[in-house]
Amino acid sequence: MSKPAGMTGGFSRFRIDLGYDGTDFQGWAKQPGYRTVQGELLVALEKIFGPTEDDFGMRVGGRTDAGVHALGQVCHIDITPEQQKRLGRTPFGAVRLQSLLPSEIVVYAVAPAKPGFDARFSAIGRSYRYLIADGKSPRSPLSARYELWVHTELDVSEMKKAAKKLTGLRDFGAFCKPRAGATTIRDLKELRVTRFLDNIEVYLVADAFCHNMVRSLVGALIRVGEGKLSAEELSKLQLSAKRESKFKVISAHGLALTSIDYVPDELLGEQAEKTRRRRTTEEISV
Amino acid sequence: MSKPAGMTGGFSRFRIDLGYDGTDFQGWAKQPGYRTVQGELLVALEKIFGPTEDDFGMRVGGRTDAGVHALGQVCHIDITPEQQKRLGRTPFGAVRLQSLLPSEIVVYAVAPAKPGFDARFSAIGRSYRYLIADGKSPRSPLSARYELWVHTELDVSEMKKAAKKLTGLRDFGAFCKPRAGATTIRDLKELRVTRFLDNIEVYLVADAFCHNMVRSLVGALIRVGEGKLSAEELSKLQLSAKRESKFKVISAHGLALTSIDYVPDELLGEQAEKTRRRRTTEEISV
Repeated sequence: MSKPAGMTGGFSRFRIDLGYDGTDFQGWAKQPGYRTVQGELLVALEKIFGPTEDDFGMRVGGRTDAGVHALGQVCHIDITPEQQKRLGRTPFGAVRLQSLLPSEIVVYAVAPAKPGFDARFSAIGRSYRYLIADGKSPRSPLSARYELWVHTELDVSEMKKAAKKLTGLRDFGAFCKPRAGATTIRDLKELRVTRFLDNIEVYLVADAFCHNMVRSLVGALIRVGEGKLSAEELSKLQLSAKRESKFKVISAHGLALTSIDYVPDELLGEQAEKTRRRRTTEEISV
Repeated sequence: MSKPAGMTGGFSRFRIDLGYDGTDFQGWAKQPGYRTVQGELLVALEKIFGPTEDDFGMRVGGRTDAGVHALGQVCHIDITPEQQKRLGRTPFGAVRLQSLLPSEIVVYAVAPAKPGFDARFSAIGRSYRYLIADGKSPRSPLSARYELWVHTELDVSEMKKAAKKLTGLRDFGAFCKPRAGATTIRDLKELRVTRFLDNIEVYLVADAFCHNMVRSLVGALIRVGEGKLSAEELSKLQLSAKRESKFKVISAHGLALTSIDYVPDELLGEQAEKTRRRRTTEEISV
């Protein structure tokens, strides 16, 4: 049971900006019997607003998989007038919500949503960062949870070359876990590989990513960096658009959702309706 | 049972450089029933060299407390000719040792120790770093394990002033957990407070630190930063040299041992004997 985007009739919609260390979560989406980010949020929210039957109509900008971190996640909730009454004297805000959450989840801001805002359907872009430490990088035990360790030195210039060939509006079927009825066409606006400080950073921006796409793309780029696949071969495999079993989906722990980009406020409602019509049957996740 | 510093008679001494995320360890020193860094190392070493009765004569440069991290820890072990024989065909080195350890412990290097080297007694300095995020710092969920979060904005210039008054060869009894027969005189060579990137970093160097000294010093500096204690008052409390219950020993998770400094190779044996004579009955730890 979900409410229409931009609805207001008696409900108050709140936008929640947050981040988390995904290591010890089974991803964003609540699952009975598992520790998930959404699950922890719902427990905290029920302490504030009382029981919910529809998860407060929560929707999220980027559904992250198990082990994936988030620095710039966004979700929204819809609070009924009855739930509002449960608030008590302490206002509902970032400090209150934070106080009910484990320290792995950080609430940056809680604010009434702009009219027409929908955390999922108003989004026009998702950015991710994947950190790799290769044979040239120093190893820090304080980064082990957040970067993939590769033993050989990676050829970053080859990786850059390959990355260039993959950007644009394309069919990324070679990198996606197939889902019946869902398109694998995505607009990969940016795919940047840089040696940044002591690490290699792969930075990706797309309108949305299909399932496993980020980790398959980065896995393929690593193979290029290792010299096991050329930039040209990778480009050809992409063009075939058939699920490529040779691209291993690399470990989640190097990956972080860095931001969700939204349309300007005045176009919020319009964008939400547009995306909703296009994607209702699809999952937007990595 | 420990062997004299610099001994060689049949033993081979190895120097091990390592780091660790201390979050899920009950500190460095092995303790039955607890997960400790030394305990994990000994389990790994026994897989390589077979059983030990004396913990391979292991000594460490900086005994860290529960929850304290290390970026530049150093220890040594003494391997008997019989144990050497157990090595098999794979040489004893960082890669082999690492393969037997959890990823929270990172082995940087394993090498035969220089003649006269003793990880504890050849050390002339220990450096620590304490990270604080205050009201001005952004909160990142990927730093939560490694920095203390303080809600107010700290007055860094007052903290710097106070830090200046505390450096030098002094009696740090006000900051130390007392131990019978042990001196609390230490040479605090550096105590630097800087706003570094988004955090406040307190950097400390001393010949050695007595128990709880780093965390009491940083706790006192935070009180200064909060305006609850003036630099002058703090200096007076230090001069009294009596254990000050008002300095709370702040959380371990913001603290990391950054390096152990050793005398130049040619003075190694001499320094070890000197320190040993002076400190045999004391614990060097934070």
